Amino acid sequence: MSRSYDRAADGLRPVAIEPGFVRTATGSALISMGETRVICTASAQDSVPRWRAGRGLGWVTAEYAMLPASTGQRKPRDGARPDGRTVEIQRLIGRSLRGVVDFAALGENSIYLDCDVLQADGGTRTAAITGAYVALALACERLVAAGTIPRSPLTGSVAAISCGIVGGRPLLDLDYPEDSAAEVDANVVMTGDGGLVEVQATAERTPLSRAHLDDLLALAELGIGRLRAVQDEAIAAGRP
Amino acid sequence: MSRSYDRAADGLRPVAIEPGFVRTATGSALISMGETRVICTASAQDSVPRWRAGRGLGWVTAEYAMLPASTGQRKPRDGARPDGRTVEIQRLIGRSLRGVVDFAALGENSIYLDCDVLQADGGTRTAAITGAYVALALACERLVAAGTIPRSPLTGSVAAISCGIVGGRPLLDLDYPEDSAAEVDANVVMTGDGGLVEVQATAERTPLSRAHLDDLLALAELGIGRLRAVQDEAIAAGRP
Amino acid sequence: MSRSYDRAADGLRPVAIEPGFVRTATGSALISMGETRVICTASAQDSVPRWRAGRGLGWVTAEYAMLPASTGQRKPRDGARPDGRTVEIQRLIGRSLRGVVDFAALGENSIYLDCDVLQADGGTRTAAITGAYVALALACERLVAAGTIPRSPLTGSVAAISCGIVGGRPLLDLDYPEDSAAEVDANVVMTGDGGLVEVQATAERTPLSRAHLDDLLALAELGIGRLRAVQDEAIAAGRP
Amino acid sequence: MSRSYDRAADGLRPVAIEPGFVRTATGSALISMGETRVICTASAQDSVPRWRAGRGLGWVTAEYAMLPASTGQRKPRDGARPDGRTVEIQRLIGRSLRGVVDFAALGENSIYLDCDVLQADGGTRTAAITGAYVALALACERLVAAGTIPRSPLTGSVAAISCGIVGGRPLLDLDYPEDSAAEVDANVVMTGDGGLVEVQATAERTPLSRAHLDDLLALAELGIGRLRAVQDEAIAAGRP
Amino acid sequence: MSRSYDRAADGLRPVAIEPGFVRTATGSALISMGETRVICTASAQDSVPRWRAGRGLGWVTAEYAMLPASTGQRKPRDGARPDGRTVEIQRLIGRSLRGVVDFAALGENSIYLDCDVLQADGGTRTAAITGAYVALALACERLVAAGTIPRSPLTGSVAAISCGIVGGRPLLDLDYPEDSAAEVDANVVMTGDGGLVEVQATAERTPLSRAHLDDLLALAELGIGRLRAVQDEAIAAGRP
Amino acid sequence: MSRSYDRAADGLRPVAIEPGFVRTATGSALISMGETRVICTASAQDSVPRWRAGRGLGWVTAEYAMLPASTGQRKPRDGARPDGRTVEIQRLIGRSLRGVVDFAALGENSIYLDCDVLQADGGTRTAAITGAYVALALACERLVAAGTIPRSPLTGSVAAISCGIVGGRPLLDLDYPEDSAAEVDANVVMTGDGGLVEVQATAERTPLSRAHLDDLLALAELGIGRLRAVQDEAIAAGRP
Repeated sequence: MSRSYDRAADGLRPVAIEPGFVRTATGSALISMGETRVICTASAQDSVPRWRAGRGLGWVTAEYAMLPASTGQRKPRDGARPDGRTVEIQRLIGRSLRGVVDFAALGENSIYLDCDVLQADGGTRTAAITGAYVALALACERLVAAGTIPRSPLTGSVAAISCGIVGGRPLLDLDYPEDSAAEVDANVVMTGDGGLVEVQATAERTPLSRAHLDDLLALAELGIGRLRAVQDEAIAAGRP
Repeated sequence: MSRSYDRAADGLRPVAIEPGFVRTATGSALISMGETRVICTASAQDSVPRWRAGRGLGWVTAEYAMLPASTGQRKPRDGARPDGRTVEIQRLIGRSLRGVVDFAALGENSIYLDCDVLQADGGTRTAAITGAYVALALACERLVAAGTIPRSPLTGSVAAISCGIVGGRPLLDLDYPEDSAAEVDANVVMTGDGGLVEVQATAERTPLSRAHLDDLLALAELGIGRLRAVQDEAIAAGRP
Repeated sequence: MSRSYDRAADGLRPVAIEPGFVRTATGSALISMGETRVICTASAQDSVPRWRAGRGLGWVTAEYAMLPASTGQRKPRDGARPDGRTVEIQRLIGRSLRGVVDFAALGENSIYLDCDVLQADGGTRTAAITGAYVALALACERLVAAGTIPRSPLTGSVAAISCGIVGGRPLLDLDYPEDSAAEVDANVVMTGDGGLVEVQATAERTPLSRAHLDDLLALAELGIGRLRAVQDEAIAAGRP
Repeated sequence: MSRSYDRAADGLRPVAIEPGFVRTATGSALISMGETRVICTASAQDSVPRWRAGRGLGWVTAEYAMLPASTGQRKPRDGARPDGRTVEIQRLIGRSLRGVVDFAALGENSIYLDCDVLQADGGTRTAAITGAYVALALACERLVAAGTIPRSPLTGSVAAISCGIVGGRPLLDLDYPEDSAAEVDANVVMTGDGGLVEVQATAERTPLSRAHLDDLLALAELGIGRLRAVQDEAIAAGRP
Repeated sequence: MSRSYDRAADGLRPVAIEPGFVRTATGSALISMGETRVICTASAQDSVPRWRAGRGLGWVTAEYAMLPASTGQRKPRDGARPDGRTVEIQRLIGRSLRGVVDFAALGENSIYLDCDVLQADGGTRTAAITGAYVALALACERLVAAGTIPRSPLTGSVAAISCGIVGGRPLLDLDYPEDSAAEVDANVVMTGDGGLVEVQATAERTPLSRAHLDDLLALAELGIGRLRAVQDEAIAAGRP
Repeated sequence: MSRSYDRAADGLRPVAIEPGFVRTATGSALISMGETRVICTASAQDSVPRWRAGRGLGWVTAEYAMLPASTGQRKPRDGARPDGRTVEIQRLIGRSLRGVVDFAALGENSIYLDCDVLQADGGTRTAAITGAYVALALACERLVAAGTIPRSPLTGSVAAISCGIVGGRPLLDLDYPEDSAAEVDANVVMTGDGGLVEVQATAERTPLSRAHLDDLLALAELGIGRLRAVQDEAIAAGRP
């Protein structure tokens, strides 16, 4: 089975990150990984939620949503009750980004990361994390430039990629048809210096062996290394 | 008081409509009017809501939402209960577009128009109508091309613009600072051949005279004529 | 086609306003326009919503609901999510009445206007505005009499009427069968001295010409003049 | 302590039932007991809820609501979640009225009883039951007259009254100040031939003795006998 | 018709109360009456709801829920909107227990009583009251032992039982099959010294005579006397 | 730092599984791991959700809830909107158990797994999976015994355990204090023959190295092996 864009098993889809896509946001980026496209914005507020107040610490949280037309078949908007998948994803994004923030350095400011999927073709949650990091980094630079905070609260970078076992073969960066056929689906989040932030591997059809888990982690490490370079370029280009 | 983009009282902000912005939608457009930007998608489905079924007639409905970062200050997403303004706007969009659709020609198909505001600087509801018409027209062309329907169900075109009285002066296409200062705020929807589809004029501070209402309607007619040309170009460019 | 009550095109249905209909309210009125009947109450509170506090300004807001039996076919009560039509109507009522209130003169007091439709036969939203003005005026008189506020915060009066194009003919004060058959449906709100507060005209079937819009505005002005007299009598009769 | 309207311990407040108050309902009544006033409507539908269908049996259910201005201090409308008191009351009304309906005779028709409190001064739930019976009886007569059902499905009449122990003294038909001061509060529902349909006695402050419970039941029986006469007159007057 | 456990008309099902069943609660009990089993917990908090604050008075409230598997046929969990029966029951439990609490002695502390039905075979609400009293008593003893409050706020004990008329025969402690067949269903709550706290009798099929009501109250008094002994033993056994 | 129950780094807390704890369920178990206790029930229904119908396949789904008193500080019940953590957990339980079910063998039957936490001291989600497997296995045996399905649809067993890095040291089966202090928190689900079903590792404070991930997986494998034996005994004991 050949892969989209004639990729090898360890190939990423074409990746692009356009910084500053939403000019009303404190920081923003439009990330594309093949046909998957996600608008990521970082909105700063000069306060923290009530349960967090009075300790001199900031807060970072994330929301994730799919535009109704993003899936080909119209998907109704989440109403009162975001569906389970949405909840799971936005918690993952929030945790991943909070992992590289020094909340004391952020002071009692909040940053909301909103990841809105424009087009969905597999890997939206990992694209959201990778793009949200760019939006967050640009927002932090702007807050420092404006004198809101004395120095960047970022302690490192973070990026994420999906991988999986499809037809017995470990593959990097699954598109939607691959994802639908996968026996095992994994999402890996890593820091810029190679530490694991989150590993989620789910055997959809057949249990996963330790050897295959090792293969997937190696693929993910490779892919995340490449994403880091694209993030760096976007941040440099988006810098005011 | 000078206007943004050095406009005259009857001047529009720079307008651009990018067709096909969301490739997973049946039809789509990204409309910009100055710093106001709205993503408009048309998603076709081969069925109608239950209350509409069995009569051979189609259905068109609209939803409107603002991305949280679109206003500068983060605006929480609508949850269980879209706020009153949102409800009012999406009903206006739906009515306006239904006004140019022949439901018998559409057959028992539905088209959902989703208007998601990327950046808000005044006039989002009228920009949404103008952009949604382009998305709808492109979707209809695609349905005809695919043989889903024998001919286009559109009976005409539709576009909309805001205008108002600011400091006693009738102005076309208010941006956000003008809108906030307006004594009277009006939204006008017209068909391509100059018929009024909807007129909504609200006196926020001082009642409106009949003479001023006439001025506003004249400005709107002028502006809508220009928007029609931009719509036509976008549809031609977006045609498959 | 003859009209109910053998009215001419510019005729109102029989109008009656019974002041003080709900004795537990600060001010109240039961308005009847033909078979349309709406209970309007004004309830004063000695505080304002939190977002409004600390500026010495009052607040006026409106809610609209239909009793389940008001339409002949039982209409379920609005639950969590008032339907779009309800939201649109209560926003219109609130805006219209706020237009004649001096919020500084009201001080940090709120007045809630509740419009509950007892029987619906077309024109409930405009009847609600006309009746709510009477309830509001009586409530303001009572607040002044009680010494809560030094003088009436009302800067003028307000009334509203529907009109429309039915079978090509401009008609005043549509009843339900006329409203259902109308090509154009308009609601007009005016102050006592003839200024327009709100104009909403919607072409349901065929676009509206400027000439017809002028006809409708003339009819509305005529009808509102007559309603004003009925309002004045009711306020005089309801005065404590 | 003297009672309102100079009543004796076993005295009712002035009672009036106006039949046909809501002309769009199948049957209706406005009941007043002193300053307590409740609009009761019965709306017939030619179907039953899905869980009830296919057995040839009808259905009767009730809803209860308070108009916001009914209590003097504005009470927000129930939204998504009717408060506990409301739920308890509407279940009581429904059960009480279903007790006198032969569902086979009603056929697969539903009757919705809506009890909307216009003014609240104690005893709204029992007034609602007494008034709803009149609305229901008038609706049944109309359904028979229209040929929808061959004969009335009512197997008897039903009425209700509150009573309580106040300052150690058993009293009939408590108004709001009495209700607030009561040690024991009871609601009693009886059929026209003197059977108990529902007894609810709640000791708010001090437990209730068997002897006092007997006193309350005797008072209730007395009061309900008088209400029955008022119901009969209203039904006769409301008969088409 | 013979009764479960070969009981006489005035017989209780086997009763057991296991104190301390939930070790994370301030006080707890697992009550079994035949196959009906309810987990009752009392959770103390050192504050009261906002509407209650600043008066030096405590608060006691109750919630009731059924585990989905408790009824044999899975019952979905209550979501946004506890069903009417649940609301009615939790209000009854709260009222009954508040009847034996001196809120001044409790100080500004709250106790939440949670009654979760593990298995339902009739009489869950009365079992919940009887078990919740044990949980509450143990919680109060623990609060006194911890020095949170100087003395127990309990002014007496409380217990409850169901009874009814089945096949014309007054019976004590109905199980589910009896409850389903009952003409009259009653729930009686009494204090330890024999005062009535709440009487609720509902005629499901045929109205109830005064004589039968007296029979039911006599049965209830008998049953509650026996439950009181079981409560006392459980409290003694659960005492730290 | 010594561990509860004087455990070594690779030690489990005392484990017990009581089969048949809820007699109204199709299958049930009460699992205890130290002070963590979870009631697990399996409720069979002879139908599947609508989206699943007509394909001859069964369905298994899970819900997770915490009794309010389970955490020491009372935790309000989830209402309209289960919190994010709850959603994440019930999705994990459902996926894990579905992994060992042959849906064709189950036929168009559903099994609902309800996991209600009685006491929470860390590891509730993994205890829920381990206990739910026992409830599911007992339910399947009962369905086979009743002739509802010809053979067990289970294709294997499944169990789960938590582990983590605390103070730099990999530990098995974290209790609540350990979990709160952990740098890395992992949950591992495995089948009876040693395949990985789900791996979730989250670095709360410092990123995780590949070596440490390997340590955690080895600990989990060890712990799950022991749990499998306890499961087998419980199923044998609970067999009818």
